[in-house]
Amino acid sequence: MIAQTPEPPYYAVIFTSLRTNVDAGYEETAVHMLQLAAQQPGYLGVESAREEAGITVSYWADLASIKQWKQHAEHLVAQQKGRDVWYAAYKTRIVKVERDYEWHKESSSQKDKNDKN
Amino acid sequence: MIAQTPEPPYYAVIFTSLRTNVDAGYEETAVHMLQLAAQQPGYLGVESAREEAGITVSYWADLASIKQWKQHAEHLVAQQKGRDVWYAAYKTRIVKVERDYEWHKESSSQKDKNDKN
Repeated sequence: MIAQTPEPPYYAVIFTSLRTNVDAGYEETAVHMLQLAAQQPGYLGVESAREEAGITVSYWADLASIKQWKQHAEHLVAQQKGRDVWYAAYKTRIVKVERDYEWHKESSSQKDKNDKN
Repeated sequence: MIAQTPEPPYYAVIFTSLRTNVDAGYEETAVHMLQLAAQQPGYLGVESAREEAGITVSYWADLASIKQWKQHAEHLVAQQKGRDVWYAAYKTRIVKVERDYEWHKESSSQKDKNDKN
């Protein structure tokens, strides 16, 4: 799914991870965290895929919303279990989305009013 | 793979896409584009995964490098074929990485000197 986000600027968290081979409730917690994130103030959407590495990009209205979600009680428990059990390594990047554009085959028109290149 | 990127700030392109069911050389071109991107000035690394959606995040030293790669002759041909054949939809986001931190199970230490939260 491609997240339907508002006009830039907005913020995102790029979370790239390598899993261990231990499941132990990983999928259930991952789904629950996505549902819980979607209920937080400032949440704009999420995109996620996993092959060798997993990439989850969550979109947020501002840095305060990102900080608040990072410190959410249930999320803190999941983060700790991630380090204890599920993840071999991860990298988190906090980014500001400065520009975006999209294209859909249906319309064959690039919605690129922000695209100056 | 988790891209080994330098200290922020740096830039990234988040490219999220939905494929058609037409292969027609997609994998070969995708691999070649990743190789070609890695040879461009300002290239820092890439992370990629596909399930329902594909997410490719490429990292760059600055906006000029991103613009130059977007306009690379072979890349322009691939972009056009992407719209003609391979993609049902895509969204491209140009972002500035403001902060990052990483964790590895091997060391059990979070390298979070940039992590003030």
